[in-house]
Amino acid sequence: MVPAVSADCSSTSFTPLVVLELASDTKQEAIAWLLSRIRDPHQNGGIELLVEQLGLGDGGSEKENPNLFLVGAKWQRLLSGAEEVGLFKEFSDGSMRGFTCANKHNFKHFEGDGDSFLSMAECQYIIKHELDTLRAKDETHVPGHPQAKLYPGKSIIRRLLSKGVLIQVFPLHEKEELKRLSYSWYQKIKLSFQPLDDIRRYYGEGQALYFGFLEYFTFALVPMALIGVPYYLFDWENYDKYVVFAVFNLVWCTVILELWKRFSTSLAYSWGTLSRKKAFEEPRPGFHGVLGFNPVTGREEPLYSNTKRQLCVYLVSLPFVLLCLYLSLYVMMIYFLMEGWALSVHDEEPTFWTRVLLFIPSIIYAVVIEIMNLVYRYAAEFLTEWENHRLESSYQNQLILKVLVFNFFNCFASLFYIAFAMQDMALLRQSLATLLITSQILNQIMEAFLPYWLQRRRNKKMMRKVQKRKAVAEAELPLAEQVRLEADMSTYLGTFDDYLELFLLFGYVSLFSCVYPLAAVLVVLNNITEVYSDAFKMCRVFKRPFSEPAANIGVWQLAFEAMSVIAVVTNCSLIGMSPQVKAYFPESETQLILWTVAIEHGLLAFKFILSFIIPDVPKHIQIKLSRLEFESLEALKKKRQLYVVGLSFNRPKQCFLLSNETNRSELVGD
Amino acid sequence: MVPAVSADCSSTSFTPLVVLELASDTKQEAIAWLLSRIRDPHQNGGIELLVEQLGLGDGGSEKENPNLFLVGAKWQRLLSGAEEVGLFKEFSDGSMRGFTCANKHNFKHFEGDGDSFLSMAECQYIIKHELDTLRAKDETHVPGHPQAKLYPGKSIIRRLLSKGVLIQVFPLHEKEELKRLSYSWYQKIKLSFQPLDDIRRYYGEGQALYFGFLEYFTFALVPMALIGVPYYLFDWENYDKYVVFAVFNLVWCTVILELWKRFSTSLAYSWGTLSRKKAFEEPRPGFHGVLGFNPVTGREEPLYSNTKRQLCVYLVSLPFVLLCLYLSLYVMMIYFLMEGWALSVHDEEPTFWTRVLLFIPSIIYAVVIEIMNLVYRYAAEFLTEWENHRLESSYQNQLILKVLVFNFFNCFASLFYIAFAMQDMALLRQSLATLLITSQILNQIMEAFLPYWLQRRRNKKMMRKVQKRKAVAEAELPLAEQVRLEADMSTYLGTFDDYLELFLLFGYVSLFSCVYPLAAVLVVLNNITEVYSDAFKMCRVFKRPFSEPAANIGVWQLAFEAMSVIAVVTNCSLIGMSPQVKAYFPESETQLILWTVAIEHGLLAFKFILSFIIPDVPKHIQIKLSRLEFESLEALKKKRQLYVVGLSFNRPKQCFLLSNETNRSELVGD
Repeated sequence: MVPAVSADCSSTSFTPLVVLELASDTKQEAIAWLLSRIRDPHQNGGIELLVEQLGLGDGGSEKENPNLFLVGAKWQRLLSGAEEVGLFKEFSDGSMRGFTCANKHNFKHFEGDGDSFLSMAECQYIIKHELDTLRAKDETHVPGHPQAKLYPGKSIIRRLLSKGVLIQVFPLHEKEELKRLSYSWYQKIKLSFQPLDDIRRYYGEGQALYFGFLEYFTFALVPMALIGVPYYLFDWENYDKYVVFAVFNLVWCTVILELWKRFSTSLAYSWGTLSRKKAFEEPRPGFHGVLGFNPVTGREEPLYSNTKRQLCVYLVSLPFVLLCLYLSLYVMMIYFLMEGWALSVHDEEPTFWTRVLLFIPSIIYAVVIEIMNLVYRYAAEFLTEWENHRLESSYQNQLILKVLVFNFFNCFASLFYIAFAMQDMALLRQSLATLLITSQILNQIMEAFLPYWLQRRRNKKMMRKVQKRKAVAEAELPLAEQVRLEADMSTYLGTFDDYLELFLLFGYVSLFSCVYPLAAVLVVLNNITEVYSDAFKMCRVFKRPFSEPAANIGVWQLAFEAMSVIAVVTNCSLIGMSPQVKAYFPESETQLILWTVAIEHGLLAFKFILSFIIPDVPKHIQIKLSRLEFESLEALKKKRQLYVVGLSFNRPKQCFLLSNETNRSELVGD
Repeated sequence: MVPAVSADCSSTSFTPLVVLELASDTKQEAIAWLLSRIRDPHQNGGIELLVEQLGLGDGGSEKENPNLFLVGAKWQRLLSGAEEVGLFKEFSDGSMRGFTCANKHNFKHFEGDGDSFLSMAECQYIIKHELDTLRAKDETHVPGHPQAKLYPGKSIIRRLLSKGVLIQVFPLHEKEELKRLSYSWYQKIKLSFQPLDDIRRYYGEGQALYFGFLEYFTFALVPMALIGVPYYLFDWENYDKYVVFAVFNLVWCTVILELWKRFSTSLAYSWGTLSRKKAFEEPRPGFHGVLGFNPVTGREEPLYSNTKRQLCVYLVSLPFVLLCLYLSLYVMMIYFLMEGWALSVHDEEPTFWTRVLLFIPSIIYAVVIEIMNLVYRYAAEFLTEWENHRLESSYQNQLILKVLVFNFFNCFASLFYIAFAMQDMALLRQSLATLLITSQILNQIMEAFLPYWLQRRRNKKMMRKVQKRKAVAEAELPLAEQVRLEADMSTYLGTFDDYLELFLLFGYVSLFSCVYPLAAVLVVLNNITEVYSDAFKMCRVFKRPFSEPAANIGVWQLAFEAMSVIAVVTNCSLIGMSPQVKAYFPESETQLILWTVAIEHGLLAFKFILSFIIPDVPKHIQIKLSRLEFESLEALKKKRQLYVVGLSFNRPKQCFLLSNETNRSELVGD
C-alpha cells in the first residue's frame, strides 16, 4: 500500500509514516522512556508501534536537531487500529460498513495481508490516534523533565506538546503518490473535475470536502456569471435594471446551498464518514485548570469552571469584539472622507490623474481592511485561547464566530452604508469592484506566492547542501534529508482561511452582484486560480497535514446559510429601491415599502419551507443507511429470540459490544 | 405488579392485559389458527403469549359478541419483551439504561421475580408490540377468510384489522390504579402540580408529555395574566398603550418555548424515552400497493410509487387546501358584511337589543369557524388517507400540516384583517373576545361533556342489565361485564385535538393579547378547566389507550415555534401602528415603517441566536448522557485491545450485538 520508502539511513526496514520531533535539549532518559512506552505491548500500557531515530544523514551538521523519530507499525497493528478508530470501508456488497478485523476478508480491496487496503493517510491517521491515546500510568512527570507533570490517564503526547518537549508530530509525504496527484490535480491543463477521491485518499476527508465545495461553488456561479456578462455589457450605465438579477440571486443562493448539502452527503457516504461515530473528545493540549474528577469519564483531569469561561466570553471577548467593530466603523468613516475629498479634487479639475485618484481611497481601504482582518485574527486567536475551552471543537467554533462577525462587518459595512444610507449605486458598483479585485490579489499573494517563494529558498538551500557531498537528482533526495526538509516546511493550519475567503466571496456575489453583475465572473476566475494555488500550496508548500475525518463542512454550512438569509433581505431592499419598482408606486412610498417588506417576509418563509422540503440526504443513500440500521435491528431481535427460547444455553461470558454497523456475515453466524 | 384482576369467568388464572375483539362472524378455523399462532413458541414462529376467550358473562344475551379474547403473558416473557422493545429503566446508579434480562438485578426496583418492575402500561405496550410483530409464515390467506390475503412476513394483526376481521385491540383499565390516579389528578381540590409520573405510569409518555405541556403552558401564562388584569382595568378604553405589553409578549413567547424544550428533555430522560431508539417503522395498516421488494428490508411487501404520492399531494391535496382557504376567506367577508349591517342597525336606533345584536355576527362566525374546522378535519383525514402514506408518522405529519394551516387561517384571518387592513383596534378587541370565549365553550362541550353524557347512558344501561340478575355494587362489576363495558367505550384518538386547541390558544395570546390583555386570563382559566376535563375524559370516558413512547412533543414544538415567529412579526406591526410610536415620527410615515421593519428583523435575528445559545438539554442530563456514551466507547476499546493482544483467543462465534447503552456490569465481565 505505501510505496516502500527505503529507510536507507537507519537499521530498521519498516515504512516510516509519522515523524516525531523532540526538542534538541530533551533529556536522554525522557527519550528512552517515551520510545519504550510507544513500543510496549498493550498489556504493559503501550501502543505497540515501531519507532526509530532518524540518522543525521549526509548533510549532517552540529546545528541539526538529532531528535527526529520515525514511527511506523506492523500490518496487523494498523488493521486493529483501523477497527479501533472506527474506520468505514466499502463492504463486498457495495455499502459502507465499520471495519472489523474479524471480518476483514469481506471488505472490498482486501487482498492477502491487506496491502493497499488502507491508504497511507489512513495509516497515518491511525498512528496519530494511537499516539494521542498513549496515557500516563503512575508517572508523576516525564522522566528528566519535572516541569512536565503527569497524572494517571493524561495523554503523554499532549503534555509533551504543551510543555514544548515535543516540537511537532507530522505525517510524511509520499513522493510518488504526490507526484501523481499533483499531475492529475493541477499540473495538466484540462477541462475536468478535480480528482476528489485521490485528494481524499492523500489528504483526508476534511481537505477533500473543502476542494469539493470550492469546485461546487465555482460551478454554481457559472450560470450567474453567464447572465452577468450580457447584463454588464448592455446595461453598462443603467444600474437600475437589476430587479431580474436580484430575484435570480435570491433563488440561486437558497437552492445551491440546499443542493450542496445533498452533494456533500453523497461524498461523505462514499468516503465512509457519514455514519462514522465521533470519538470521545479529549481536552485540547492548551487546556489548563485545577485537577478534579471529570463527571463524565470519572477520571482525574484538569477542570475549569464553565461560569468563569462564560464570564470571560461575555465580559471581555464580547466587549472587545464590539470595540473592534466600532473601530472598523471609524475606519470606514475615514474612507468616506477620503472618498469625498478625492471626488472634490476630481470635480474641480478633472484630469487623468484625478480619475486614477478616484480609485485610490477604495484601494487603500481594501488594503486596510485586509490588514485589520489579519490583526484581528491574531487577537481573536489570543482571546479564544485565553477563554480556555476544554474541547478543540468549541475552541474552533468560538474562534470562527469571532472572526466571521468581524470580517463580515469589516468587508461589507461600507457597501451597506453606500447602498442603503447613501443610496448611490454608481459608487456601490465602484467600491464593490475595487474591494473584490484588491482583496483577491492580496489574498493570492499572501496565501500561495509568498509561502512558495519562502519554501523554494529553503528547498534550494537544502539541495545545495546535499549536492555539496553527493551528486543526486532532486527526486532521489535521501530519506534523512527528505524528512528534515519536510520538518522545516510550514505547517498547514487547516481550512479555516480558505473557507473564510469563500464565505466573503459568496457574500459579495449573493449580496450585491445585482448591482455589479461582473462580480460573479470575477469570483469564478478567482476560484479557478484558487483551485490551482490551493492545490499547489497543499502539494508543495506545506507539510502534509494529518487527515481529519469530516462528514460535512460543519459550521461553515451554517455561516453560508446565514449569509443567504441576509442576501434575501439585502436583495429585497435593493429591489424596493430600484426606480423600476418605484415607478409602480408613484403616489405612495409607504405602499412601496410595505409591499417590499411583505414580499421579503414571503421569500424568507419560502426559503425555510424549501429547506424543509428538500431532503438533506439523497434517496439512494437514505435507503442504504436504513438498510444497515434495519439489519442491525433484525440481528438484535434474532439474538434475543434465540436467547428467549433457550437455544443459547451456553451464553458466553464475553460480551461483544459492536456499534450499530455490524456486518451481515457475523450476524449470519448466529 | 399488576393488581390481580381475578379472571373469574374463564378457566385460566393469568392477568388479562389486552383485549382482542374479533368480528362476530369470524370463522372458527380463523380463530383457532390465530390463537395457536399467538400461543406458539418462538421456534414455530409464534409469540408465546397467553390468550383465552372471554365467557359470555352473567348479562349474556344473543346480541353480544362472543369473540372477545384476553391476552396476557408470563413474567419471563414480559421481561424478554421489555428488552426487545428497548425499554429504558432506572439503573442502580441512578442513570437510565436499556433493560436487558441478563442484567435485570442491577436495575432499581427489580425485586424477586420482577413484581412491580414493569408497570401495567408497559406490559400492555410490550404485548401490543409482540402482537404487531406476529408475522405470516407460508399462509396465503387467513384460514376461512380468503379475502384476507397474506404473504410471508406480513403482520397478521394489521391484515386482520385492515380487513375488518379484527375489530379492535385495546388494553384493559386497572380499576384500583385508575381510582387512585383520578383522585390525585382531578378529584381532590388542591393547589399542586399534576401527578405527571403517575400519569406516565398509567397512560405512557405521549399522554404525560401532553399534560406536562398543558401545565407548563398554563404556568407560563400566569405572569402574562397578572400583567393583563391591571392593564385591562385601568386602560379600559385606551387601546393604544399596548407597546410595553407587545414587547413583553415577544420576549415571553420565545423564552417559554426554549425553556419548555429543556423541561421536556428532563422529563423524557427521567422516563427513559430520551435515548431510546426508535423501532423500525412498519407500513401503516391502511397502506396498499403492488407487491414488490422493499429496498431496505429486502422483504416482499406492497410498494407504492413515491412520485405518484407526490403528484397526489401537489396536484390534488394542495389545490384542495387552497380552495378551502379561499372558502374560509369568503365566509370571513360575509361576516364583515353582517358586522357592518349590525353596526348600521345599532347606529340608527341604539337600544339594548341592538347592543346585543352587535355581538351576534361574531358569535355566529365563531360557531361557523368551529363547524368548518370540523368538516375540514374529516376532509383532510380522507385526503391524507388517500395519499397512501407508507408510515404512520408521515401520515400524521401530512395530516397535522393540512389541519394546522387551515385552522390557523380560519381562526386568525379575520383578526389579521381587522388589525392590519381595517386598523380598528376596538373591533379587534371585541372580535378576539367573542372568538376566544365562544370557541372555548364549544370546545369544552364537544370534547368532554358530550362524550361523558353518552358514556353515562351506556354505563347505566349496563349496570341495569347486570343488576337485574345480581345485586352488585358498581365497583364489583365482574370481569366479563367490565371488559364488554370497556369495549363499548369510545376510542381515544390521540393528543392531536388537544394540542391543536392549545396551539390556537397560544396563537390568540401571543399574537393579539396586547390589544386584549384579558386574553391571557381567559386562557389560563380555560387551561385549568381543560386539565380537569381532559383528565376526566381520559379516566372515565375513553378506553384506555396504548401508551406510546415519546421523547418530546414532536412536530408541535415546530408548530409553536412557527407561531412565535409570526407573533414577532405581528407584535412589531401592532407596535408600529400604535399612536404612541407614531407620535415619535410625526413628519414621516416612511421613517416609522423602516424603523419598525429594522427592529423586527433585529428581534427575529435575536430570537434565532437565543435558540442557539440556550442549550436544549440541561447540563446535568448532558453529563449523564455523555457518561453513558463514554462508557460504551471505553468498553469497545477495551474489548478491541483484548482482542489485539490475543487474550481472547477463544473468540466465541455468537456475536452479541448490543445497542449503545450497554451496562457497566456486562462490560466489567469482559
